[in-house]
Amino acid sequence: MIDLKVVALAGGVGGAKLADGLAQVLQPDQLTIIVNTADDFTHLGLRISPDLDTVCYTLAGLANPETGWGRVNETWNVLTFLKQLGMPDWFTLGDSDLATHLTRSYLFANGWTLSDITQDFCRKWGIRVRILPMSDDMIQTRVFTDEGELEFQEYFVHRECRPIVNGFKFAGLENSTPAPGVVEAIESAKAVIICPSNPWVSIDPILSVPKIRMAIEGRLTIAVSPIIGNHTIKGPAAKMFSELGIKPSVVAVAQHYGNLVDCLVIDNSDDSLTEKINTLGIRAYPTDILMDDQFDRERLGREIIDHILGWENVQL
Amino acid sequence: MIDLKVVALAGGVGGAKLADGLAQVLQPDQLTIIVNTADDFTHLGLRISPDLDTVCYTLAGLANPETGWGRVNETWNVLTFLKQLGMPDWFTLGDSDLATHLTRSYLFANGWTLSDITQDFCRKWGIRVRILPMSDDMIQTRVFTDEGELEFQEYFVHRECRPIVNGFKFAGLENSTPAPGVVEAIESAKAVIICPSNPWVSIDPILSVPKIRMAIEGRLTIAVSPIIGNHTIKGPAAKMFSELGIKPSVVAVAQHYGNLVDCLVIDNSDDSLTEKINTLGIRAYPTDILMDDQFDRERLGREIIDHILGWENVQL
Repeated sequence: MIDLKVVALAGGVGGAKLADGLAQVLQPDQLTIIVNTADDFTHLGLRISPDLDTVCYTLAGLANPETGWGRVNETWNVLTFLKQLGMPDWFTLGDSDLATHLTRSYLFANGWTLSDITQDFCRKWGIRVRILPMSDDMIQTRVFTDEGELEFQEYFVHRECRPIVNGFKFAGLENSTPAPGVVEAIESAKAVIICPSNPWVSIDPILSVPKIRMAIEGRLTIAVSPIIGNHTIKGPAAKMFSELGIKPSVVAVAQHYGNLVDCLVIDNSDDSLTEKINTLGIRAYPTDILMDDQFDRERLGREIIDHILGWENVQL
Repeated sequence: MIDLKVVALAGGVGGAKLADGLAQVLQPDQLTIIVNTADDFTHLGLRISPDLDTVCYTLAGLANPETGWGRVNETWNVLTFLKQLGMPDWFTLGDSDLATHLTRSYLFANGWTLSDITQDFCRKWGIRVRILPMSDDMIQTRVFTDEGELEFQEYFVHRECRPIVNGFKFAGLENSTPAPGVVEAIESAKAVIICPSNPWVSIDPILSVPKIRMAIEGRLTIAVSPIIGNHTIKGPAAKMFSELGIKPSVVAVAQHYGNLVDCLVIDNSDDSLTEKINTLGIRAYPTDILMDDQFDRERLGREIIDHILGWENVQL
């Protein structure tokens, strides 16, 4: 058995896939996944935690393999009738997903924290690795766009990322604290893995919670690029780089994380940029980073763990 | 066309059936249905109005014809997943029904009143007669039993009416007012029809809202017995009479409503009790009061309307 503890920082679909791969390779007590909660929101009175749900559903084997988010074998009966009553249907609430949101909302109203609820859900869904929200405090990503300031889900789902982005704010951050166990998990980890999630709206919120970045600094940190070539694997990260005046590429990702990360895992097709990344003081590690299936997830997870284990022996 | 306006007071299934029959016979502007809301409750954070829903679903043709409550072609997907997350499943939340509760709860949270919401639902469901909650204030039936004081749905659904009843309280009544239009509808009605609903927990709450009973007093009032022989057609009314030390019968119903009602519509099989009811100063009108199908509803509705129209000409 590998003697190693790691922490993974994850947003939605891409993060969930790598977290799943790591969970295949490590023992449950070796992996803690810290999940972005800044795109949590209240919709139709329900408290929804999209990234936590995506990570949990994925780790539980309940995720929809087609979309990467939502649940497998989902039905949409309630949404059909909500629509008949004039309720908005831009956020696709499946029936089994709705049960999650209803339960979460009910437990919140009964004084549970997001950590308590997440732990309870993981137990009921048979998830053995530890999944922690970044914070139990309400932190909300606001997107500054050419059409004004938008709530994240409004921008991301309702407006389908169409507005031009010119910045972000994580409201509620100032007085927030990391969820119980987050700092301790980082401090006892051999390495921190930043999953291939959106740097702007999935990873930055986690790093912005007071004390989290500080706990990571100086610790072996490996990020996996969410960008291949000048495209995002999934989602608006490349579009955001462009709109903020930055040419999207693995170099832009390296520059974004800067000296927080020791290593950036990039796709083989971006091999030509290895040297440029290395000159930033970040070791580029090219491999196949596309995770199309369960096998890919496990392979990439294993490569990253092997890279961490061999870290001291391989230098630039 | 009949020149007549009537008000019907209704609880759940039995009340909804007669209200539906009346709606077949009358023009939409001739009928106002005032519905009990004292068994409304909050469940899993959702505001549920069982009697309003039953009446609306029935009038909209959406009710489950087997049960009389709930919706036709219902599915139970969300409930299955709620149960997996440890949520209680004693209150059977169907998927389409859940959409109603979610929408109601959302609109409540946005400052709508129960009247506003009911009107909106009726419009969306194509219901043309007017359905009013008895009050927009939260009034809640508490059942005093040998097992202590229980919330109504706890007694009625969760405990399946098993505890022995020794009384009722309608909490919140003191400071309540009738919903907008309730008193005006009664005052402009030729007659008030008390549907065959439970006298204790469906009709008494309506009559107990300040100003409603006063508006009805002195007006032609016709009740339809929910009891045939010594059994309730549906629900625990007969059991309640017995537990409160009263032999259940149409006579007990007549005594319960007392001089508020001018006429009690009873089943032909209770014809032998006609004289006993008449001696109470209440005219007994025996007919076939069982409503097994749509035809029965309309027939009973028409008989009652005809009886009201001929009232002045027929004396004891």
